[in-house]
Amino acid sequence: MDIIYKPIIFCLCLLLGHTVLSQQAEYALMPMPQELISQEGKFRIDTTFQVAVQGNPDERIYANATRLIRSISERTGIFLHAQGFVKPEDKDANAPVLITVSRPGKVVLHEDESYQLTIDENQVKIEAPTDLGAIHGMATLLQLLQADTAGYYFPALQINDNPRFAWRGLMLDVARHFLPMDVIKRNLDGMSATKLNVLHLHLSDNQGFRVESKVYPKLHELGSDGQYFTQQQIGDIIAYADALGIRVVPEFDLPGHATAMLVAYPELGSQDQAYEIERYWGIFDPVLDPTNDYTYQFLDSLLGEMASLFPDDYFHIGGDENTGKHWDQNPEIQAYMKANNIKDNHELQTVFNERLLPIIQKHGKKMMGWDEILQPGVPKDIVIQSWRGKESLYEAAKQGYQGVLSNGYYIDLVQPTNEHYLNDPIPADANLTEEQEALILGGEATMWSEHVTPETVDSRIWPRTAAIAERYWSPQSVNDVEDMYERLDKISLYLETVGLMHLRNKGMLMRRLANGYDTEALEVLVDVIEPLKIYQRNAGGTMYTSFSPYTKIADVATPDQKVAREFRDDVDHYLQKSTEEEAEAIRTKLSLWEANHHQLLPTIRKSPVLKEIEDLSYHLSQLGAVGLEAMDIIAYQATVPEEWPERAKKVVELAKQQGGRTEIMVVSAVEKLVTQAIQEEGRNNTNTKY
Amino acid sequence: MDIIYKPIIFCLCLLLGHTVLSQQAEYALMPMPQELISQEGKFRIDTTFQVAVQGNPDERIYANATRLIRSISERTGIFLHAQGFVKPEDKDANAPVLITVSRPGKVVLHEDESYQLTIDENQVKIEAPTDLGAIHGMATLLQLLQADTAGYYFPALQINDNPRFAWRGLMLDVARHFLPMDVIKRNLDGMSATKLNVLHLHLSDNQGFRVESKVYPKLHELGSDGQYFTQQQIGDIIAYADALGIRVVPEFDLPGHATAMLVAYPELGSQDQAYEIERYWGIFDPVLDPTNDYTYQFLDSLLGEMASLFPDDYFHIGGDENTGKHWDQNPEIQAYMKANNIKDNHELQTVFNERLLPIIQKHGKKMMGWDEILQPGVPKDIVIQSWRGKESLYEAAKQGYQGVLSNGYYIDLVQPTNEHYLNDPIPADANLTEEQEALILGGEATMWSEHVTPETVDSRIWPRTAAIAERYWSPQSVNDVEDMYERLDKISLYLETVGLMHLRNKGMLMRRLANGYDTEALEVLVDVIEPLKIYQRNAGGTMYTSFSPYTKIADVATPDQKVAREFRDDVDHYLQKSTEEEAEAIRTKLSLWEANHHQLLPTIRKSPVLKEIEDLSYHLSQLGAVGLEAMDIIAYQATVPEEWPERAKKVVELAKQQGGRTEIMVVSAVEKLVTQAIQEEGRNNTNTKY
Repeated sequence: MDIIYKPIIFCLCLLLGHTVLSQQAEYALMPMPQELISQEGKFRIDTTFQVAVQGNPDERIYANATRLIRSISERTGIFLHAQGFVKPEDKDANAPVLITVSRPGKVVLHEDESYQLTIDENQVKIEAPTDLGAIHGMATLLQLLQADTAGYYFPALQINDNPRFAWRGLMLDVARHFLPMDVIKRNLDGMSATKLNVLHLHLSDNQGFRVESKVYPKLHELGSDGQYFTQQQIGDIIAYADALGIRVVPEFDLPGHATAMLVAYPELGSQDQAYEIERYWGIFDPVLDPTNDYTYQFLDSLLGEMASLFPDDYFHIGGDENTGKHWDQNPEIQAYMKANNIKDNHELQTVFNERLLPIIQKHGKKMMGWDEILQPGVPKDIVIQSWRGKESLYEAAKQGYQGVLSNGYYIDLVQPTNEHYLNDPIPADANLTEEQEALILGGEATMWSEHVTPETVDSRIWPRTAAIAERYWSPQSVNDVEDMYERLDKISLYLETVGLMHLRNKGMLMRRLANGYDTEALEVLVDVIEPLKIYQRNAGGTMYTSFSPYTKIADVATPDQKVAREFRDDVDHYLQKSTEEEAEAIRTKLSLWEANHHQLLPTIRKSPVLKEIEDLSYHLSQLGAVGLEAMDIIAYQATVPEEWPERAKKVVELAKQQGGRTEIMVVSAVEKLVTQAIQEEGRNNTNTKY
Repeated sequence: MDIIYKPIIFCLCLLLGHTVLSQQAEYALMPMPQELISQEGKFRIDTTFQVAVQGNPDERIYANATRLIRSISERTGIFLHAQGFVKPEDKDANAPVLITVSRPGKVVLHEDESYQLTIDENQVKIEAPTDLGAIHGMATLLQLLQADTAGYYFPALQINDNPRFAWRGLMLDVARHFLPMDVIKRNLDGMSATKLNVLHLHLSDNQGFRVESKVYPKLHELGSDGQYFTQQQIGDIIAYADALGIRVVPEFDLPGHATAMLVAYPELGSQDQAYEIERYWGIFDPVLDPTNDYTYQFLDSLLGEMASLFPDDYFHIGGDENTGKHWDQNPEIQAYMKANNIKDNHELQTVFNERLLPIIQKHGKKMMGWDEILQPGVPKDIVIQSWRGKESLYEAAKQGYQGVLSNGYYIDLVQPTNEHYLNDPIPADANLTEEQEALILGGEATMWSEHVTPETVDSRIWPRTAAIAERYWSPQSVNDVEDMYERLDKISLYLETVGLMHLRNKGMLMRRLANGYDTEALEVLVDVIEPLKIYQRNAGGTMYTSFSPYTKIADVATPDQKVAREFRDDVDHYLQKSTEEEAEAIRTKLSLWEANHHQLLPTIRKSPVLKEIEDLSYHLSQLGAVGLEAMDIIAYQATVPEEWPERAKKVVELAKQQGGRTEIMVVSAVEKLVTQAIQEEGRNNTNTKY
């Protein structure tokens, strides 16, 4: 498919005199479709706007078509009163929007999700084999909404589209920090807007068991602190997802990550002890006893109950990060291993999986798990989710196993969008056969929830996950980072209109921190800092617990800050090309930062929670000052006091220190300016000498 | 109680050299307590912060005490890890916070809600007869959180407190625009923070029937567009409210306001016709047939089912705004009236109420309704909710009936806070006996939802309802508007931290309108406009329907805009006293507005939805210009061209026009400046002449 893609866009560009980049950014689509043919003309939106549906769709199409009308009305302010709800009787072939669907879509792996979208001046047509494809077509249409002085319109074009990968997932960890219904629903809306189709719910872990069980009610009663989904709510989530064409895959992490289960049913554990819900983050020892028949009876009942709640074919049993220590410490387990010739804990977990598998199968499910579940002899219809790396995924594919890539999509680690974006599940050098490639089903962005709450989780997922969604949907060749960022900026705004809180909660978090309405100076700082990345946030691994406040500077700071990123880009371009425009932009920012510390100090003084950013704020102002000095040296060959290089380097070094578990993201750029200035200054001095 | 209040505060003020106003504003409490004795000292919050509970409380106290810890941790950023959850075993008399409760509170009318709060340097003590009082004590404590350079603290003081009125309600109309679970829950949190204790849910109307009925499932299936609370969700709302000590009173509006019910069961109607869910706002004719026995059989089953869902003693049957037209048009109903000697529709509705009453009683409830249900012979335990005015309430009280005032608290009408605030349910001139006064149970703010959505409803309820809550709780003598506004500004920020969206959705609404991140110029305009008040918003009564976009300028504009109010106050003070400080503030604003139109125009150009504010924006800039000219005339006796007075008056007149269903709220103030300038100019000219 990607073979068609490039020439078409290329054609377009020649035709219209645009570059590929501006062409894509003009449409602000994400994910970009497989094929887009631009045309002359505009379909104008007015009060006659209506949608008709022909063919044989699932009834979910009507709710989606109604949402389309509401969304356009909300964004354009036009009173679209001609049609309150789209209904099966609305079949007019001349309707402004005509959707044609061949058959009801099934919300299952490998369903046909393709669609064609054709827009001319008179009509918008969406044609798709299934309503799932038609829903994607509507998602594309919503992103195409544009305006000129005459009003709102969709640009004339033709799109032929279908996903590169069948499994395009977002995992939400609702176990560590519980994420309630409204968080789940608005994220499903965000997924639909970006054509993701699998919501993976990580439902049990050491810190909580998050589903009501009628068979073993102590699980949610004792294992959740009262924070769990009722079975009716689970049904509600599944129905909401199904209406958007999104699968819901449940995960119950076994046999490790099981503390919350053992709080309720300690008899399942490998130690004869009482358990308490884990309050820290990390890897812990509590683990089910794989040598006890009761464990399997229990799991048979429990997983049977849970399997009946989730209609998807796949059932995720976790399987990761078992330390094995409790097995080592239990003489009966050791005796069992000896008696059964089980060499090590790895083999013992294989025994567990082997006994778990028929239980999963008995309840009509295919097993999915993290890398560790891949053992000789497991059936070929299991799915491996790789957190360890692509190598294990390819190794599995070579053995004939299906896999989903999550390594490289750990969005909890606060890494920049481009790193995830360029992480291709099947890069050109993967060295897989076509058959093996087909076993790589796709990927999942994983939102582990140690350090997020319902207030902050949206800003950790979005907008970065839109770029990941493009990686899963669009051709491999759509990989221009600059263009991605340009579109992402617009998509982020659009995602706010579907209900996500990533932008609007920033103001709230800042007002709470400042204990006041004036957050201008605070925002100047916030916009250039990011939370510490990878696993550094949690100092010593025990700084934070379930009871910690996630309301501080590291929580309002978001990944991949645009202001900082653009500054770094400006500096790079300036140092290559010395354009006056970039110099101006750089100086404006440096001046703002230099002056900001004194603007921010009064807020810090009245709000002790901000004490932890005082040094950070000072360092930023110092960076601003030396940055400006460096710019002067570079631009005007200004001579400077002998001690300047040392002083400037010191400022840069100090600014590398973390503050409030965040770091300043413009240090490297200022450092480049300083380095360049020192070189120039050296030259100037040299010139002076001779 | 209020007799004690004033002298105490007065005492304080003499002692500390503060005025009453600054004393109150310093504490930023809302509602103000009955008695507050300020003391020297500060209770410092550190990581040892814990709560103990003694006595015999309901278990709801523990969840509230745990929330107290979390809230303080979130606002201070202090890691309060010493106590994850407050539990019954936490009874240490020396705990930093000690709560003592005599008995479990019942969430019923007239429960004891009093409490004492004592803070000294070593301990915070809350003592209350019931846990409901203790919960109010915690709400007060949370508002007392303060900071100095050494950190966070509670100021030493003693508070003796109890409510003036037992019924302190907020009515949410979930029928016209459905308001889902998260909206209900966060508003319950807002109610708890301001000591409101009755959530009145208006559950059925012409536009929707919003509760699942298992007895008559067509009600929610056909009468709700799929937007209704399941019975489990109703239970969830009640449990959530109960945990906060808040009653939930359901309203099913009968016999009028019944279109949605008649869609499902047209046989109950007074016309032989099919019904459709009403999409417009207003008063409509569909009404139950009061002459049909089946109507009462149906209501017996339905209300029996509904009564079983809501544990509160009171059950609201609406009873308002029956046009009677469908009764007039139905010959059988007319024949029935003749046969039974029923003179008019008023009497016929009395017949309906008389037959409804034993049904309500049979299901263990006391009847509540709007003014219209007060008919001779209804039992004395009913409650009249007055939307018509205080007179009908006092008339009812004189007849021995209990009443709740809503007239004057219609927060959907976008009136300024002070009007609601000064609307006392029992003003000094009420002329009621003590017994009659006791029948005035309190009041309810009513949030009718024609023109609000889940996105905007918070900004219509809050912060104004906090001031109304104070009217219901605090002594009559707490009625200084300026002081109220000073505290309200801080309480509004605090209410954001409990989860309300009134502040943070403003940014979202503006970004959507601007279709961009830069909303600075838009905000300058938004901050001085308000939606058209009373019933003017809905031009001709039919401009808006259920399908209309409530995402426009009138929706981001909020009631009682602070910038506009402060400007009006500044102008009034300036014209009285001519202080330089106010002149400066006035000029700053006028200059900002004058320059703003050109700042805003590019946004208007790229976002056609903003076209409707182009004139408004221009008028504001013109107001800024003539306002500045007027200031110069007043301050410097500048002479001006002869045509200036006419031109200035014309600018003012034009600026009175609505735009986008909003109005500029600084026109009157600029008009005052212009009038003053014209007078001065007249004098100048006169002076010149002689």
